[in-house]
Amino acid sequence: MIAEILATGDEIRSGALVDTNSAYIAEKIEETGINITRHNCVGDDEDELTAILLELAERADIIIVTGGLGPTLDDLSREAAARATGVSLVLDTKVLEKIENFFVSRQKKMPDSNTRQAMFPQGAAILENPIGTAPGFSLKIKQGTFFFLPGVPAEMRKMLNEQVVPRIKQEIKDPYYYETRTISTFGLGESALEDKLSGFSGLWPDIKLGFRASFPEVQVKLYQKNSNKKALVKEQEEAITWIKEKLGNKIVSLTGQPLATVVGNLLIQQKTTLAVAESCTGGLIASWLTDLPGSSEYFLLAAVTYANSAKESVLGVKKTTLEQWGAVHEETAIAMATGANKLSGSTYAIATTGIAGPAGGSPEKPVGTVYIALTGPQGTKAKHYFFPFAKRQLNKKIFAAQALNLLRLELLKTDEKEQKLTMATLSSNKNSNF
Amino acid sequence: MIAEILATGDEIRSGALVDTNSAYIAEKIEETGINITRHNCVGDDEDELTAILLELAERADIIIVTGGLGPTLDDLSREAAARATGVSLVLDTKVLEKIENFFVSRQKKMPDSNTRQAMFPQGAAILENPIGTAPGFSLKIKQGTFFFLPGVPAEMRKMLNEQVVPRIKQEIKDPYYYETRTISTFGLGESALEDKLSGFSGLWPDIKLGFRASFPEVQVKLYQKNSNKKALVKEQEEAITWIKEKLGNKIVSLTGQPLATVVGNLLIQQKTTLAVAESCTGGLIASWLTDLPGSSEYFLLAAVTYANSAKESVLGVKKTTLEQWGAVHEETAIAMATGANKLSGSTYAIATTGIAGPAGGSPEKPVGTVYIALTGPQGTKAKHYFFPFAKRQLNKKIFAAQALNLLRLELLKTDEKEQKLTMATLSSNKNSNF
Repeated sequence: MIAEILATGDEIRSGALVDTNSAYIAEKIEETGINITRHNCVGDDEDELTAILLELAERADIIIVTGGLGPTLDDLSREAAARATGVSLVLDTKVLEKIENFFVSRQKKMPDSNTRQAMFPQGAAILENPIGTAPGFSLKIKQGTFFFLPGVPAEMRKMLNEQVVPRIKQEIKDPYYYETRTISTFGLGESALEDKLSGFSGLWPDIKLGFRASFPEVQVKLYQKNSNKKALVKEQEEAITWIKEKLGNKIVSLTGQPLATVVGNLLIQQKTTLAVAESCTGGLIASWLTDLPGSSEYFLLAAVTYANSAKESVLGVKKTTLEQWGAVHEETAIAMATGANKLSGSTYAIATTGIAGPAGGSPEKPVGTVYIALTGPQGTKAKHYFFPFAKRQLNKKIFAAQALNLLRLELLKTDEKEQKLTMATLSSNKNSNF
Repeated sequence: MIAEILATGDEIRSGALVDTNSAYIAEKIEETGINITRHNCVGDDEDELTAILLELAERADIIIVTGGLGPTLDDLSREAAARATGVSLVLDTKVLEKIENFFVSRQKKMPDSNTRQAMFPQGAAILENPIGTAPGFSLKIKQGTFFFLPGVPAEMRKMLNEQVVPRIKQEIKDPYYYETRTISTFGLGESALEDKLSGFSGLWPDIKLGFRASFPEVQVKLYQKNSNKKALVKEQEEAITWIKEKLGNKIVSLTGQPLATVVGNLLIQQKTTLAVAESCTGGLIASWLTDLPGSSEYFLLAAVTYANSAKESVLGVKKTTLEQWGAVHEETAIAMATGANKLSGSTYAIATTGIAGPAGGSPEKPVGTVYIALTGPQGTKAKHYFFPFAKRQLNKKIFAAQALNLLRLELLKTDEKEQKLTMATLSSNKNSNF
């Protein structure tokens, strides 16, 4: 059984908009074990649309179409589907009522044009849209089963996951269970990860291993397929234990959480707080941390001290330190971290100072140089790193991630100590590798 | 004359990677006046690849293919192109030498597998890759002219712009000049912009108008086509003057620059400096500003004071202010801005305090409420805004953009005064609307 994807719309066809829907759909459909053979895209042209629907009906068993379900005249998926099937469009009064209610609830009058969204090719099964006005529909054209979904990503995703994927699973009467597990890692590139896990496929031939860069992190993905649910779970547990042994603390999260989330959760668990002093990362660490709801529980402040004078006036870095060592130095990083710590009364403080480029580098301190300091109950330390990236924004990201990772490793040590203490109290042997 | 795009590779087909290349190519090709009718994508499968190349050769005049030019066995574009054309692959010794030199210059030995990158279908014209090891090639299959480019975006873009687009322009002997002009705006949605510019197409029937959301900004795009270069330039000037009248200071930049860049440039031009005090925006303003090279010229510091205690200790906000008004209030915003200003000695300071959500809202101050303060040579003011977004990260972005926009409008006033002064001195009437 094979599937294809069709994205429609002039914005995508002409390149005004990058099509992110097709990648999302491909991933979800492949997780059901069905092979995606092609992606396609055409614009808002009824003849083109009708022609490609007929081609797809010949080539694929399942076809997911996005876009063209809006209220305006260039939304033509309904018309093209009806033409390709050789039926006419009929009004669904129940759907019309829902659309009218949608506008009533927002205290607005429904424009006449929205009536078009309640028209469907005769024989189509309606797919409800719980968060927008554009319902989708499914329809058989020749041998192909088509699912028409809106182009708005949030609506498409919800409808795909809640209505389309379950129906496909039911339809294919697939005897297998599928599961995808994502592990986030930091500190190794894709090929280094591949090397470290090189024995994997021999040990678990039923689990497909994948690597996906999500800069500066890399995700390790386990794609599983098994007719026995219990066997699948057991196999996953064993595989993860093996991966933990191989990758150790390069693993950021066994559930795919990114660095900032993991660090935030550790701080909350340990009931500790954080202050940040940023120079070269320019507020990125703070912005990542505050992207997470609830960050105010642990995040006290960030001082983005770009100018030397700000390092002095805000963080209390001594003029002599700056004069003797310069702004980019481990002594300065340490003074920044301890300054932020004192200023806020936080449990931990991290500081970054470096050269993000493109200008400001020197033979001794080339672009990509960064000093990161960490202070906390275990003391204060600073580390020097060098990353050979040419781009300013990539450098900011890798510097920020490296700082969060340094803090993560420190928090894990505390976590391990606490766990060992608990373990000892419980006289238990169930110790985690992590 | 029509064109199609083909993206190849299992990463894109399976959804592990979003295909950004096709949108880029579509935009560049459409700028030459050639219509893109379809995008296609297949995986690393030689039969599938060969089949789609033959289909494309029947359907389109020009076909741009990306991916499958690497050194590994799953890079199959060369083989499929040769099969589709009915020729064999031949080694190009000059290209091989270049690839070997590429490795020598990096003090590495060339792996044998890279020899594959010097193999081309007989009769193909080589497209040089100035920044990577994978050269491309062009080839005629039936009536279609194919351009095979690497999948790495930076390499693909450079080769497309420098080698493919000029060759296409030459080949189509197109008598027209094309130009795309991008205007960035802030403060109006796409449909509001469309309304304000509703008379445009009647006045300039030769210029196609487009709107592109780049949240929280919206870009207005002018797509021009004219056989007379002078007429094109004159028409663009007139159209832009008309748009400036209609949109006024909603225009952020007439050359498509985003808010942070425009604000940064104005600060540099006016030889002024900036300090930022961020609560709800959590470092995002600082991170946007420091994404730009040279920001250290004007950006002194940002104090991301999430905790009330940090607002007091860093910015000197009075305990009584916080107790009387709360953290989310215009008095607090003003105290934060003036505090940052004093601390840094900056010319200007902006401050944000609000509720980004999802928690923390109340009936009086719902999620989406923000107070923004600005202090500078013209005095101090605070404004209250409310944005009905449900998502924390969207709120952070719109709050941050609103703060930068408030500063932009203030800097423009200064700019206008200076301009008027210069104008008066020069006794000139050439005053700008902007």
